[in-house]
Amino acid sequence: MKAIVTVMLKDGVLDPQGKAIGHALHVQGFGEVQEVRAGRVIELDIDARDREAAAARVDEMARKLLANQVIESFKVEIV
Amino acid sequence: MKAIVTVMLKDGVLDPQGKAIGHALHVQGFGEVQEVRAGRVIELDIDARDREAAAARVDEMARKLLANQVIESFKVEIV
Repeated sequence: MKAIVTVMLKDGVLDPQGKAIGHALHVQGFGEVQEVRAGRVIELDIDARDREAAAARVDEMARKLLANQVIESFKVEIV
Repeated sequence: MKAIVTVMLKDGVLDPQGKAIGHALHVQGFGEVQEVRAGRVIELDIDARDREAAAARVDEMARKLLANQVIESFKVEIV
């Protein structure tokens, strides 16, 4: 089974990487870009009894390791 | 309009970050994890006439700046 974990900075947390990308896009002539937020995506191949079991375990993985919950939020998708 | 660009390493390209995450998950007791691939996600707020125009411009942004097409592939979603 394949799971996709998307980790983004929480709203209100400074995003220097997003700012830098936004600035670079403007310099390259993409003035229509307003705000940019950068995050991480982690694709996992996982053995699991069913989708619910997979989602629960990946959620646990995200809480314990993949996301820093002080400044990040995450989303788990089982595909 | 909001666009989401997901950038992943191409198949066959060594993914040390993914390997490190996989190893860490195993150490934490998540033995059911097989393979892990790590990538980047970039969310953009963009002014555009319509969805097609937005997709075309974001595709151009990805080719020019957001993805290193030698080793990375990307996917653009307009949400």
